[in-house]
Amino acid sequence: MPELRQNFLTKEWVIIATERAKRPEDLVTHRPIKTVASFVETCPFCLGNESKTPPEVLRTPANGNWQVRVVPNRFAALARDLEPTRTIHRSRRTINGFGVHDVIIETPDHSQFMALMSDNHVADVLRVYKTRYDALSHDARIAHLTIFKNHGRDAGTSLEHPHSQLIATPVISHQVRGRFQHALAHYDEYGECMFCQMIEEELQEETRVVMSTEHFVALELFASATPFCTHIYPRRHMASFGDISAAEIQDLARTLREVLAKLYYGLEDPDFNFTIRSAPAECVGVRYFHWYVSIIPRLTRVAGFELGSGMFINTVLPEAAAEFLRKVKAEAGVGVGSSQ
Amino acid sequence: MPELRQNFLTKEWVIIATERAKRPEDLVTHRPIKTVASFVETCPFCLGNESKTPPEVLRTPANGNWQVRVVPNRFAALARDLEPTRTIHRSRRTINGFGVHDVIIETPDHSQFMALMSDNHVADVLRVYKTRYDALSHDARIAHLTIFKNHGRDAGTSLEHPHSQLIATPVISHQVRGRFQHALAHYDEYGECMFCQMIEEELQEETRVVMSTEHFVALELFASATPFCTHIYPRRHMASFGDISAAEIQDLARTLREVLAKLYYGLEDPDFNFTIRSAPAECVGVRYFHWYVSIIPRLTRVAGFELGSGMFINTVLPEAAAEFLRKVKAEAGVGVGSSQ
Repeated sequence: MPELRQNFLTKEWVIIATERAKRPEDLVTHRPIKTVASFVETCPFCLGNESKTPPEVLRTPANGNWQVRVVPNRFAALARDLEPTRTIHRSRRTINGFGVHDVIIETPDHSQFMALMSDNHVADVLRVYKTRYDALSHDARIAHLTIFKNHGRDAGTSLEHPHSQLIATPVISHQVRGRFQHALAHYDEYGECMFCQMIEEELQEETRVVMSTEHFVALELFASATPFCTHIYPRRHMASFGDISAAEIQDLARTLREVLAKLYYGLEDPDFNFTIRSAPAECVGVRYFHWYVSIIPRLTRVAGFELGSGMFINTVLPEAAAEFLRKVKAEAGVGVGSSQ
Repeated sequence: MPELRQNFLTKEWVIIATERAKRPEDLVTHRPIKTVASFVETCPFCLGNESKTPPEVLRTPANGNWQVRVVPNRFAALARDLEPTRTIHRSRRTINGFGVHDVIIETPDHSQFMALMSDNHVADVLRVYKTRYDALSHDARIAHLTIFKNHGRDAGTSLEHPHSQLIATPVISHQVRGRFQHALAHYDEYGECMFCQMIEEELQEETRVVMSTEHFVALELFASATPFCTHIYPRRHMASFGDISAAEIQDLARTLREVLAKLYYGLEDPDFNFTIRSAPAECVGVRYFHWYVSIIPRLTRVAGFELGSGMFINTVLPEAAAEFLRKVKAEAGVGVGSSQ
């Protein structure tokens, strides 16, 4: 029997289509694991090719060979040297294209997927995210920051070398604003963070939990819109990613790397996106919103029903996806890049 | 210089990324036009294979050889013989999977794309949409109806034979509800339908209009989220697709067919979806909402930024897309299926 489920956080409905149900195993890509070179002559992100990128914004470590490097996107969607100016003319509303578009090069090694890095290397990447997040949060022209990663062609990557991106915009999107308003309404009615409530329920229920650590919980949402979409929530209430502590970064690195490795080994390197959903810059300390990481494997296609109705059809039970991922072994990263 | 534009109807922001800008010509698929057979032995939708589908819901004409046929989807996402029942348990909200999922087989001929049909044949399809729309709108268990079409693999099609679908759900999605609320707020503030206002402005402005007829206007939105996304609006204020008149159906058939043919010839058969965005069943006569057809070519991929921020990056200026489509010749359909 199919079932409609409502996302508690966003109020979106999803159809869990059991008549079309797939076993989690049916979504394994069966893609041959390809051998990737550590260095590609033409790749602007490879070690030794630093002159092929715009001038560096940040590198770590500061001296010696870099592990992680931040550069402006050469094909930036927005321009960073403007004062945002709004124009309203009848039904047409515009802001000139102010914004910041960074590329975070995660490793000098072309072949080193995040799923296969050491936890310490992932922690380096996360610390760089936080450094940029903190710096840009204090820019009064910026309303919202999106940190995201595209892995694979179906996830929108054009460059293979492991990298993430950050886009800072002078506006808060309608989608983000809407989610914020739901969280605020819930807080006003019940006096608690709806995310904290849900995390506690999921930990009791256990069936949708993929893994949990001292500081984080990775789970499939009850009303997950797409197969294997996995969220990582901090257990401690925090509205903004910028509030993460040093110990929490180390623990998030382990959790994120392990979830990515479970997807990598379990589904055979599926294309995926991840994004950090954090409070807008103007609301960093609020009691009602809770930041998290959303990892979205790109295993199915959005079709006319989803575009037209705004509802998704998910053919994999979230409980079955969680059980599948729990069983995939993905022990501590051993840095199996070809540089080892 | 890039520009942020806000969708007047939905309040969503889109980045018009001129630094990455593509000319409309850059998105031509250059896909070889493939020859498709009129009859495929294994296709359940082909003439003569009627026994391979579930029992027919509707056919037109009622006697003799059918032109359009409606059958239940064999792999329906929802089940039609249930009473919708809502369950709330802490953060988990469900409704059992009641719903209706029809397939509208647009033609007995496997090879006959809608872009290449006669206008009269498209009008037959639209009349069938309306018959099913009217019948299901009166079912008290149904809150919302989505009529949509998937054309091509990137648009989520699994069966090549030309068909559309209708899914009726016992809930109104959060997305649809939100758009409704914006339209209502606008009406309450200005005393006019925001769609009527925008259509009037676009007709004056002309730059984003693709074509206009006695009863319809096809245009690119000022803040179009994706390249060549084209909307067809009725000029007369109507909240619901069910309100369309016989003369308007004939005119919509011509407009829809011609826009699809412009995309087909201009971009060389791109994958696309279309959907009819109409008022929920409970609000058929409201003054503030205006139905329309949204045609969405699937030329680009949604990546992490779009998923994470809810904002889109559009690399083609809507004005350039409209100019490109205006120039593509797509005169009255001559039914160039291989049956001719």
